[in-house]
Amino acid sequence: MSPEFALIHKHFTRPVTNATLGVGDDSALVRITQGCELAISTDSLVAGTHFYPDTDPERLGHKALAVNLSDLAAMGATPRFVTLAITLPAVDEAWLAAFTRGFFALADQHKVELIGGDTTKGPLSMTLTVLGEVPAGRALRRDGAQVGDDIWVSGELGGAALGLAQVQGLAQRDNEGSQSALERLYQPQPRVGLGVCLRGVANSAIDVSDGLLADLMHICERSTLAAEINWQDVPRAQALAAFSEDRQLAFALSGGEDYELCFTASPSQRAVLSALAVGCGIALARIGQTQAGAPGVQVFDQHGQAIKLPAAGFDHFSATG
Amino acid sequence: MSPEFALIHKHFTRPVTNATLGVGDDSALVRITQGCELAISTDSLVAGTHFYPDTDPERLGHKALAVNLSDLAAMGATPRFVTLAITLPAVDEAWLAAFTRGFFALADQHKVELIGGDTTKGPLSMTLTVLGEVPAGRALRRDGAQVGDDIWVSGELGGAALGLAQVQGLAQRDNEGSQSALERLYQPQPRVGLGVCLRGVANSAIDVSDGLLADLMHICERSTLAAEINWQDVPRAQALAAFSEDRQLAFALSGGEDYELCFTASPSQRAVLSALAVGCGIALARIGQTQAGAPGVQVFDQHGQAIKLPAAGFDHFSATG
Repeated sequence: MSPEFALIHKHFTRPVTNATLGVGDDSALVRITQGCELAISTDSLVAGTHFYPDTDPERLGHKALAVNLSDLAAMGATPRFVTLAITLPAVDEAWLAAFTRGFFALADQHKVELIGGDTTKGPLSMTLTVLGEVPAGRALRRDGAQVGDDIWVSGELGGAALGLAQVQGLAQRDNEGSQSALERLYQPQPRVGLGVCLRGVANSAIDVSDGLLADLMHICERSTLAAEINWQDVPRAQALAAFSEDRQLAFALSGGEDYELCFTASPSQRAVLSALAVGCGIALARIGQTQAGAPGVQVFDQHGQAIKLPAAGFDHFSATG
Repeated sequence: MSPEFALIHKHFTRPVTNATLGVGDDSALVRITQGCELAISTDSLVAGTHFYPDTDPERLGHKALAVNLSDLAAMGATPRFVTLAITLPAVDEAWLAAFTRGFFALADQHKVELIGGDTTKGPLSMTLTVLGEVPAGRALRRDGAQVGDDIWVSGELGGAALGLAQVQGLAQRDNEGSQSALERLYQPQPRVGLGVCLRGVANSAIDVSDGLLADLMHICERSTLAAEINWQDVPRAQALAAFSEDRQLAFALSGGEDYELCFTASPSQRAVLSALAVGCGIALARIGQTQAGAPGVQVFDQHGQAIKLPAAGFDHFSATG
């Protein structure tokens, strides 16, 4: 066995129980539950673009899987399997051991099996493909929003963006809640359980990865409607209170990486959603409504005045991205 | 729509006919044919490791998909869907257009749908995940070889390795067959149809990506048996005839990247395989036998003498890799 394969074998091969065949053949083999559709999502994390090369590998292992599971959560899918393609400048046993520790801890929590992958020499990056199951026809899609839906968001927003600003030296780190902001950045928790519970309740959903405004805009575009948000109803990380209104708007609405779920549901589902929030132990905030109109998101203050919005979302190829 | 998403939309979004939902949501949705297992394989191609950064993007688009489809062929799976995560140093419309032209030409040939992906800024690389279907329990696995099986290989070997040596200036380019060697390197044809036909005929299979010796060794290890190969029976690219015996051995047995299928089958299947070769229009050569014993591959000359073997396979992390 060559060093490359020995490396893969040591760090990534674990016995599979749900898959028919795991790591070690030309492909993996899995069986899909009858009556289910397969939800498939792929995300890359590239050093220098998505994370600093010296990021703690255990946190990186967690986050790489978390952002992919978040996509399945936004579809209401139950995660089942994952493949991991990882590119490394050199073999670093300690780094790999820490990365896989973070990766498998989250995988075990969600009963996701690693069934295949690739280990390659090159600039540090990783690409994961996650596979989940959802009963046929019941997935939460971006194109399902109806005019007159309530707009909801889970948890709180802005924490991850504040954490990133702290790491970059663009925000002070000594206020109350700084640590939890860093946790949000490094250890996002995909809302997998919530996503499954939203099947049959929400009309559309997306995960907040690029910022609420940018992500809600995707729902508007795919569902061909407009959205209005009430700023005072947007739940935000406690630590944001130390910052100006403008920076709070930027962190909470355009910051991204919080990996909460934004979804729309008929007003008739309000009681169900209140109960669901208690059942899942996750706060759910009703922050606005969808309306007939050209795709667009408007934000209003407590006086009903439209707020000028910060630039929307994160663009990997923009001059500042 | 941000520039990044406009880019993805323009180059990678095509209407899907087999998937329930394609590019443009948090995940794709697909339905799997009842009674089938899903075969899943992931491979990365990294600039500087797997290809030169200035490689013709149309050829690269073909090859990136071809090497992944080859993995499905080795399982006897019918390709259905693919995801593509691509990392680019900068937006290059002409490059992307050429890449997708090569990619989609091969995808259309095999009726594979692109259902999702990710476009990221960073060092040039791409990771594909292919999904195929195979009737439950009928996949060709590496661990299915039986003692006394014939060992077979499709097509001819060594062409891609010779092509690479030509590109690297390590072999002359003026002999007959040089051009076809380069074609093997740049435009490998995954043996998808052959793989499907080998279901129920072959006991084990692998695709020749790292070199026949290294790949056959994987079958030996997973099936816990030994393999003997007769060098004179190994089909090799015509252009190899211009080289010394040692270089022919290296090209044909250790070169890799030919993406032919190596498989084992009971001697009782010889007539079936002869007919199958005619039906598929692909030469099939019987090159040796499996035997009881510790995993290992031995190669014999026409006098029955063991041949000292060149170093086995390609190792991404070796000093020379």
